[in-house]
Amino acid sequence: MIDNKSKLHIFNTLGKKKELFIPIHENHVGMYVCGPTVYGEPHLGHARPAITFDLIFRYLLHIGYKVRYVRNITDVGHLENDADEGEDKIAKKARIEALEPMEVAQYYIDSYHFTMDVLNVKRPSIEPRASGHIIEQIDMVQRILDHGYAYVANGSVYFDVVKFERDFGYGKLSGRTLNEMISNTRTLDGQDEKHNPADFALWKKAAPEHIMRWNSPWSIGFPGWHIECTAMSTKYLGNQFDIHGGGMDLLFPHHESEVCQSTVANGEESVKYWVHNNMITINGQKMGKSLGNFITLNEFFKGEHELLERAYSPMTIRFFILQAHYRSTLDFSNEALIAAEKGLQKLCSALTTLEKLKAGNSSTEDINAWILRCYDTMNDDFNSSKLIAELFDAVRIINTVYDGKGSLNADDLALLTQYFHIFFFEILGLKAETNASGNELSNSLMDVILDLRQQAKNEKNWTVSDMIRMKLNELGIAVKDTKEGAVWEKN
Amino acid sequence: MIDNKSKLHIFNTLGKKKELFIPIHENHVGMYVCGPTVYGEPHLGHARPAITFDLIFRYLLHIGYKVRYVRNITDVGHLENDADEGEDKIAKKARIEALEPMEVAQYYIDSYHFTMDVLNVKRPSIEPRASGHIIEQIDMVQRILDHGYAYVANGSVYFDVVKFERDFGYGKLSGRTLNEMISNTRTLDGQDEKHNPADFALWKKAAPEHIMRWNSPWSIGFPGWHIECTAMSTKYLGNQFDIHGGGMDLLFPHHESEVCQSTVANGEESVKYWVHNNMITINGQKMGKSLGNFITLNEFFKGEHELLERAYSPMTIRFFILQAHYRSTLDFSNEALIAAEKGLQKLCSALTTLEKLKAGNSSTEDINAWILRCYDTMNDDFNSSKLIAELFDAVRIINTVYDGKGSLNADDLALLTQYFHIFFFEILGLKAETNASGNELSNSLMDVILDLRQQAKNEKNWTVSDMIRMKLNELGIAVKDTKEGAVWEKN
Repeated sequence: MIDNKSKLHIFNTLGKKKELFIPIHENHVGMYVCGPTVYGEPHLGHARPAITFDLIFRYLLHIGYKVRYVRNITDVGHLENDADEGEDKIAKKARIEALEPMEVAQYYIDSYHFTMDVLNVKRPSIEPRASGHIIEQIDMVQRILDHGYAYVANGSVYFDVVKFERDFGYGKLSGRTLNEMISNTRTLDGQDEKHNPADFALWKKAAPEHIMRWNSPWSIGFPGWHIECTAMSTKYLGNQFDIHGGGMDLLFPHHESEVCQSTVANGEESVKYWVHNNMITINGQKMGKSLGNFITLNEFFKGEHELLERAYSPMTIRFFILQAHYRSTLDFSNEALIAAEKGLQKLCSALTTLEKLKAGNSSTEDINAWILRCYDTMNDDFNSSKLIAELFDAVRIINTVYDGKGSLNADDLALLTQYFHIFFFEILGLKAETNASGNELSNSLMDVILDLRQQAKNEKNWTVSDMIRMKLNELGIAVKDTKEGAVWEKN
Repeated sequence: MIDNKSKLHIFNTLGKKKELFIPIHENHVGMYVCGPTVYGEPHLGHARPAITFDLIFRYLLHIGYKVRYVRNITDVGHLENDADEGEDKIAKKARIEALEPMEVAQYYIDSYHFTMDVLNVKRPSIEPRASGHIIEQIDMVQRILDHGYAYVANGSVYFDVVKFERDFGYGKLSGRTLNEMISNTRTLDGQDEKHNPADFALWKKAAPEHIMRWNSPWSIGFPGWHIECTAMSTKYLGNQFDIHGGGMDLLFPHHESEVCQSTVANGEESVKYWVHNNMITINGQKMGKSLGNFITLNEFFKGEHELLERAYSPMTIRFFILQAHYRSTLDFSNEALIAAEKGLQKLCSALTTLEKLKAGNSSTEDINAWILRCYDTMNDDFNSSKLIAELFDAVRIINTVYDGKGSLNADDLALLTQYFHIFFFEILGLKAETNASGNELSNSLMDVILDLRQQAKNEKNWTVSDMIRMKLNELGIAVKDTKEGAVWEKN
């Protein structure tokens, strides 16, 4: 196999440039990605990071790494205003629905899994839950206290950002300053306990009505939002690991706070490559519940939202997301999704055509060069956008050969087939959808129908052959006569 | 709707007789079921309890209860010899594979979920992991220590079964005696720490090579196997709850130990109804890895085991399990599975025929009586075996009407359709399989083919109509001409 390990470059948010990827332990990659906060139905904001890091996971595996991919589930401690104050989101939802918080969390965890499954997102190696790692979080808070970078106030524990700024410098990852951290917080419960408004909670004492709570040395309470990722990544990947991923929206203050925590608790920065996917918009607008453009993934799959003209399949959504490079913004619109659907169908049709190609004596196309170009796109910071463009170039090759305007020898045809499959199925994680290629029984029945049609044509029984064509048209099936016989396509 | 709540009887292992089911809190049911230990691929021993308690969950929901169904995942602390000694199974597997134990656990959790999904087992309301509830287990061990029914020895904590026997009497649930508990244990690591060989571990100090470990007041170690279920059922369902389920193999010593723990820790027995599903055998033999008859569910689905003549679909497995009452033993054999498959197909065909029935002016069958008989079977300790027999009686009714030898008026036809669907899909959780009824596209294509066949017959073109019949036969599709037109069935 081609040695892609020596060529892979990743854009590192820490330093803001592409760097050659060199893992800490040869042949192994440790990757931690911030997973979902489970208090609502999965939406586009869940799909993009899940698919981005699925692509990266798949590619690292493909080029020969043993990857431990940890993606957490935040089922506690994510505070409402994304600073460290206010009510725990999950506990709040549970009270409204008069449910046990873990029952709410479980419902949305299951919903997340079902949805990611249909998007063909591989399960991570380990999927730890924040509520399942309270001991580890308490241990890490204690370590930060022991090192003198946190303080206890009224049963809660806060990270001393001012002291950290003095000793290590704040904002390495995000470029934000302490003042921005302060203006990011609001004057809410707990602010009067802090030495400085920039400080963030490591442990919060539970108010009496707060139903998710655990014993700790400081109070019956719950962990702050940022500590879970540092505690769980350290537990499963060690003090230092290769890649930490997440959405751009988590860069500040969440990831910046993780840098503070791990620097102090582990005595060193944990992460070698920070990787952030960019945001999505809908018809040019930020997505938000108050804006009326908040569309869940299931609504996309069913076409059940006033902004959607119709349903879009999971593979259309996946393909659309992969058609943009993960560091570009991505705007969802009906036009763009319909275009993506057509593009995906074109690739699926090419897969079918590819099966029918016959090898010639010589090649008019350079397949090895095409394979190298495909890998180059992925080695250039996982550029799936350019990889898909290369797959469309392969479609051009396939159709040229199919139309008899070019040829491939047996070796090149085998290579093209092998690598088209590798890039389409294994690396991009796409699937040929049933409505594009039909299932097994449908394919057999179509064979029967096309035989009947051929027989009618042989007998010059145009009434029957026209009737067949008409009825198939009603089902959205187009039949095309080629020199290799009739082929069909469902749109 | 019929008031089934006042009629439901459940066989209670505690007392060994059927009892009217009266929930602790009106309209609510709390149910805890021992879930999988995640150190291997899911097999029949996982399918039977999952499907048994899925049936119970579905029925309780159907008759109007709000059910909180908790099924745990044992990802730590299940000790190898099912007593309290020896090495933690998961940690052992992890060391063999040189993996992080949680990576092994995650792999098998995902595998369990995928397999239960295809068996159409509903996800429980809460699925807590033992490793995620170490704090709760430590708290409960402390409570048992505080009450004087446990002692610390060399960093481990043991339950004092002798003292429990004296104060409360041992063996209420299983009828086993202390002597049997003693003979159930073996002379292994830790026995010399116990005051009495019958005592069982609540917390074990970790040996240096034991990689799953947590801080506790007594040692760095891990919880005993029995404590997790008591801690997690108490947390999510309260000190007292309605139903505790599991396989018969867990009755002793696991559930008997749970009785000891909750009696002491909560000051009362927790469980009102103990429900146990019986065991499975394969060709009359106990299933076991050493016996060469250990077949995973995926091997059943793919037919990939030397004992299997061919593949059996997930719905065939589910139907086969439901065809026996959960308290009967169940023997798997090729003959029995093939018979189950035919039975399921018969029900699926009847579903199709049912759609085609036309209402008459009067009814020759008593549909209301049939509905009541169906509910009676379920109210009699969830007797799915008898319910399926009633569904076959409905097939007889359906065919009688279809053949014109009987009739149903519009109301009765609507009732029969409604309740056949309720019992088949909602309560038994069965699905009409694609190879029985075809998918949407296949159905449309078959319509095209049957139209062509009809046209050929009209034109007395026997060559074409025979060719169609022959080609469909090759695909395993049989066409039958009825007074309502041609119908088809795939076998």
